[in-house]
Amino acid sequence: MRAPEGGPDTVGSAGVDNLAHHAAELIGRLRVRQPRVHCITNAVAQNFTANVLLAAGAVPSMTIARSEVAAFASRADALLVNLGTFDAERRAAADLAIAEAKAASKPFVLDPVLIDRSPPRAAYARGLLSRGPSAIRMNAAEFAALSGDGAPQTLAKEQRTIVAITGGTDLVTDGERTFRIANGHPLMARVTAMGCAESALVAAVLAIEPDPLTAVGAALLMFGIAGDIAGETANGPGTFGVHLLDALFNLDPAVIRARARVS
Amino acid sequence: MRAPEGGPDTVGSAGVDNLAHHAAELIGRLRVRQPRVHCITNAVAQNFTANVLLAAGAVPSMTIARSEVAAFASRADALLVNLGTFDAERRAAADLAIAEAKAASKPFVLDPVLIDRSPPRAAYARGLLSRGPSAIRMNAAEFAALSGDGAPQTLAKEQRTIVAITGGTDLVTDGERTFRIANGHPLMARVTAMGCAESALVAAVLAIEPDPLTAVGAALLMFGIAGDIAGETANGPGTFGVHLLDALFNLDPAVIRARARVS
Amino acid sequence: MRAPEGGPDTVGSAGVDNLAHHAAELIGRLRVRQPRVHCITNAVAQNFTANVLLAAGAVPSMTIARSEVAAFASRADALLVNLGTFDAERRAAADLAIAEAKAASKPFVLDPVLIDRSPPRAAYARGLLSRGPSAIRMNAAEFAALSGDGAPQTLAKEQRTIVAITGGTDLVTDGERTFRIANGHPLMARVTAMGCAESALVAAVLAIEPDPLTAVGAALLMFGIAGDIAGETANGPGTFGVHLLDALFNLDPAVIRARARVS
Repeated sequence: MRAPEGGPDTVGSAGVDNLAHHAAELIGRLRVRQPRVHCITNAVAQNFTANVLLAAGAVPSMTIARSEVAAFASRADALLVNLGTFDAERRAAADLAIAEAKAASKPFVLDPVLIDRSPPRAAYARGLLSRGPSAIRMNAAEFAALSGDGAPQTLAKEQRTIVAITGGTDLVTDGERTFRIANGHPLMARVTAMGCAESALVAAVLAIEPDPLTAVGAALLMFGIAGDIAGETANGPGTFGVHLLDALFNLDPAVIRARARVS
Repeated sequence: MRAPEGGPDTVGSAGVDNLAHHAAELIGRLRVRQPRVHCITNAVAQNFTANVLLAAGAVPSMTIARSEVAAFASRADALLVNLGTFDAERRAAADLAIAEAKAASKPFVLDPVLIDRSPPRAAYARGLLSRGPSAIRMNAAEFAALSGDGAPQTLAKEQRTIVAITGGTDLVTDGERTFRIANGHPLMARVTAMGCAESALVAAVLAIEPDPLTAVGAALLMFGIAGDIAGETANGPGTFGVHLLDALFNLDPAVIRARARVS
Repeated sequence: MRAPEGGPDTVGSAGVDNLAHHAAELIGRLRVRQPRVHCITNAVAQNFTANVLLAAGAVPSMTIARSEVAAFASRADALLVNLGTFDAERRAAADLAIAEAKAASKPFVLDPVLIDRSPPRAAYARGLLSRGPSAIRMNAAEFAALSGDGAPQTLAKEQRTIVAITGGTDLVTDGERTFRIANGHPLMARVTAMGCAESALVAAVLAIEPDPLTAVGAALLMFGIAGDIAGETANGPGTFGVHLLDALFNLDPAVIRARARVS
């Protein structure tokens, strides 16, 4: 059962029945609150990630310079650490920015991009778990490289974090409750930085919603529905990426409630 | 009163009445002269900035490598120094490139991105004023961080530069004359690197027009009108960014004269 | 004469008469094999290059970090080394990645971007010739900076490589056989990173086709025809870049055979 349109705000954290209702409320809150998200992310993803945040109502910053990253992180409402094109500069920046975020109890999202292809990067990602990310968003291959044989729920419980594994169907869990989200479009896999940008949106929603499972689930739902909508008018991956930004910008709460496929 | 279409070229520098006429002439000159603009700019903005320059008829280069930046700057007709994602490599590159530009009396534009969020970056930007930028383009928050309580006219006069503050209405001044340009579209604030790319266009027009106030005003007018046109067909920030490139490429002198809102 | 549609696969390497036939077969093979291409490329081109590879069916990676580049290069099926925005980090990465590629006999493509504007970069590019690139893709000015007065055929023969010079008409040669490809669109020169992305597509096709001249010619043909198609619906360089990605994604073997202009 889905929360009825126009019904009262649910109290407390989201369940399968009302995640769409929360997401519909949170897209509006995002546009009003305009949270600042500092992103330490890869060179390929920086532009699209900034545009996804702006389209959704958030405000991005992207510096990785050692001399400035603390100033930016301390003025941001949430932090993204994405391990793509991870070099010495980004490593130093991540260390400083995470320290700022944790000291101020601000959410920090980890995106362990392509750790399945680079053993040193996988080891680094495992080390970051001890820094207490609020959420980790990754694909199935990255999850396997991070956790080995364990279930997503086990990793979430052990690390006291939200685990989000995106793909054909997204899975989001805090170890106790698990959502599956069937929104999204196959062209998402044919545009670079889609997952990276989705992780930034997760950070933006974590900045405005205290329940982390609700925040992560809602962000994935917004992004997946924007993908559904973009897929209906796209002629291929070029128009798809452009239309997804338009769809996020125009995303209507009623449309979120109507299109959500959560189980 | 606006300069009549098809009238003779005005002599000397632009005033409120004929800035549109100058801009209409300069878009054609840009396409013929194809000035080279070397850009030391942030990682988020590099791609869109290069595409804006190409769409307008200019030729971009973007290297920040210490071993090469002097070679590129010395072969360019203008220089852009943008302080976004400013790291040690970009700092060294800016120093070398500014020296080349000043030695050859070529214009150099400063874009002090987000200095309101980073005190060390603001201090660095104030230091660059002594290097004699031909123009500084920024938003209102960045201007406040750069100049404190002063008026734009005061900063322009003291630094013998053109001050351009863009936003809902753009202000351009050399300290004596001031233009206000009301073209542009709200979606410009929802696409990353719009201001950065506009600063690069300012550098391109400075390369082909000796009167700096005319050049800066004309560049802002071209960009704002391209934004107006893009806004009429865009469905959101994704299509807006794409259509703005098309609009710049197709920008017609008569359309500039007809749409200019200068006061 | 062009190979008849539906005819049997030609055996051996491509000639003028059957390059289109090979390209039509290779676009399908690309989509099935999904080769991994590791790209050491410039900051301006990274995003568009990744999107071109994904649109064509290949899988990009882009890291330049010293600690990881060998891991990525050894898991890739081909390597691109593009000299744009070439800094110390990229230089070290290129050295390590080329060593991996050569040790594993995997193809490596050199794109000597803008060496005509930077003598140190030109010297570096000439040094890379001794590392045995499978192909070099460049424009006419870059070719002149690389080879001086020599003919493309001479450079190809001396270096035992494929020389591809793209522009209004593309030339591809192994020193013995030479193709000229007249597909493509003038807007290709008005979108940044077009040539860079085309070089990445050359690397992708080299990963799946053992005859290097066939592979390079086929990649240029695919890209040129995608440009033709994009040019028919584009309103300017913004929509052109977006539509080119769509056209590559949708590129039909029969359309390649029908549109190819090879001599």
